[in-house]
Amino acid sequence: MIHAFLPPRAVVREVGLRDGLQSIARVLPTERKLEWIRDAHAAGQREIEVGSFVPAHLLPQLADTAELLAFAKTLPGLFASVLVPNLKGAERAIAGEADLMVVPLSASHAHSLANLRKTPDEVVAEVGRMRAARDAAGSKTLIDGGVGTAFGCTLQGHVAPDEVLRLMQALLDAGADRVSLADTVGYADPAMVRSLFERALRIAGDRLWCGHFHDTRGLGLANVYAALEVGVTRFDACLAGIGGCPHAPGASGNVDTEDLVFMLESMGVATGVDLPKLLDLRRRVAGWLDGETLQGTVWRAGFPKTFAPAEGVTV
Amino acid sequence: MIHAFLPPRAVVREVGLRDGLQSIARVLPTERKLEWIRDAHAAGQREIEVGSFVPAHLLPQLADTAELLAFAKTLPGLFASVLVPNLKGAERAIAGEADLMVVPLSASHAHSLANLRKTPDEVVAEVGRMRAARDAAGSKTLIDGGVGTAFGCTLQGHVAPDEVLRLMQALLDAGADRVSLADTVGYADPAMVRSLFERALRIAGDRLWCGHFHDTRGLGLANVYAALEVGVTRFDACLAGIGGCPHAPGASGNVDTEDLVFMLESMGVATGVDLPKLLDLRRRVAGWLDGETLQGTVWRAGFPKTFAPAEGVTV
Repeated sequence: MIHAFLPPRAVVREVGLRDGLQSIARVLPTERKLEWIRDAHAAGQREIEVGSFVPAHLLPQLADTAELLAFAKTLPGLFASVLVPNLKGAERAIAGEADLMVVPLSASHAHSLANLRKTPDEVVAEVGRMRAARDAAGSKTLIDGGVGTAFGCTLQGHVAPDEVLRLMQALLDAGADRVSLADTVGYADPAMVRSLFERALRIAGDRLWCGHFHDTRGLGLANVYAALEVGVTRFDACLAGIGGCPHAPGASGNVDTEDLVFMLESMGVATGVDLPKLLDLRRRVAGWLDGETLQGTVWRAGFPKTFAPAEGVTV
Repeated sequence: MIHAFLPPRAVVREVGLRDGLQSIARVLPTERKLEWIRDAHAAGQREIEVGSFVPAHLLPQLADTAELLAFAKTLPGLFASVLVPNLKGAERAIAGEADLMVVPLSASHAHSLANLRKTPDEVVAEVGRMRAARDAAGSKTLIDGGVGTAFGCTLQGHVAPDEVLRLMQALLDAGADRVSLADTVGYADPAMVRSLFERALRIAGDRLWCGHFHDTRGLGLANVYAALEVGVTRFDACLAGIGGCPHAPGASGNVDTEDLVFMLESMGVATGVDLPKLLDLRRRVAGWLDGETLQGTVWRAGFPKTFAPAEGVTV
């Protein structure tokens, strides 16, 4: 059933290999990651963030990003993205022919200085240099400016929506092809999401790429629903909800991929994902990560007897 | 901050003492339940379902319902409800001067026959007899017809929205003062919720009492948000999310009271509840129920640094 108040399709971007694994101390072997990418693609996922181009000594878990990107590029129709913190990382993304590079910017000045050692406007300037490098190389790698702590910050507290939107506009002006908003620390509620994304869509239009929510306080899927209602059609998620426990052991991290796909498909919002195949992959990934904090409900509860995937989709 | 697309106030009905405890094998001592009711009231909760008037041999956990109701009636401003499956139960609710009696009806014929041993229309007829008994007694106890399996059923599968709404109208015609909709088995998604509650509100108007959601597949709070947006202002919830695991051990049951209050207050929807006091009570209840499956995120994650209760509320 298609609802007039929801978009007919949405994309679930798998970021478990980047945002999930970077939060877990253990290093997943490259062959496991290759299996994950291969089978997420086989299950119908078409956008995967394979890793980060950061120095390997900072995040040894993601040191094989170049190899994963090269593999992802071989899979038909897969749009492969990487996270890049600076120009050096962007040059590696361009060399690896990533389809998209996500540049994190923190709208919280305190968080930006603590995590990126730059002010938000210094990150904007760096995006300008990345754009110049991309264009000089004749590369097609798109640049997504990801505005984090967009709903508040554990260090600074309040982050003004006006400042978030100013930085979003500045990223576009500096040459970002896309902009995204992230609730990095799980502070957002559905009303905040609706209000900020409505304003963001007026600024960025089709260039508004993605909503990134954490489930720290159980509101991840409610926040996705609120964003969907105002027209956002792309969301980050991590298989088994791995990653991002900024507050306490056992607290939820990222929105869970399989639960998000379930919610969307149940509502008639087509994702292109084959849920049984995705749950089979989840079972294996959960096994590899045995002992880590995992999330999710559908893998355990099963599908409702009434569940049918969204109309018109074949994988 | 007050949002035009949300109601300024909502009521969180505590149903943990009924829907929560009936799903747990252990019998919580009456003195614990009295403490729970007393301190939920002290934290600002003004609507509490204290138990069920069912035969004690069927639900020994709820055998002290009359005593709990008598105590609840002594607390200023507390609106005390009980569940009643039949006329005999209704007579006890009337004798105990309950403010509200909830009569469960299952829109799924298969579920109705299996659980209540009556067809839905036989329950409607029983509501007519309850109304006659209530009026004959000169009682003020309100009757709420609670339409369960309103979004589907584990036995029968699909439940037609038209049939749900027909039964809701029939309940009103038979003398119910209020009607409610329940996702008894956790099948609802936010789009279904929006669609069905929009139609239900057109039928019942102010007599539409309550939305009752389970979190079996992680959609409990998203469903509440969808219902809020169309104007529903009263929701059932269980402290620590106890109860209702129809599918598998460890699966979530009812929407969690403290997480729901957090979401509402965060969005500026005033509940009248003092969250720190509620979390203190949750800690004690969790201790009494040690070993049971408990839910909730806010008790562990804490409040966002930016969190402020909804405006204009004092407990």
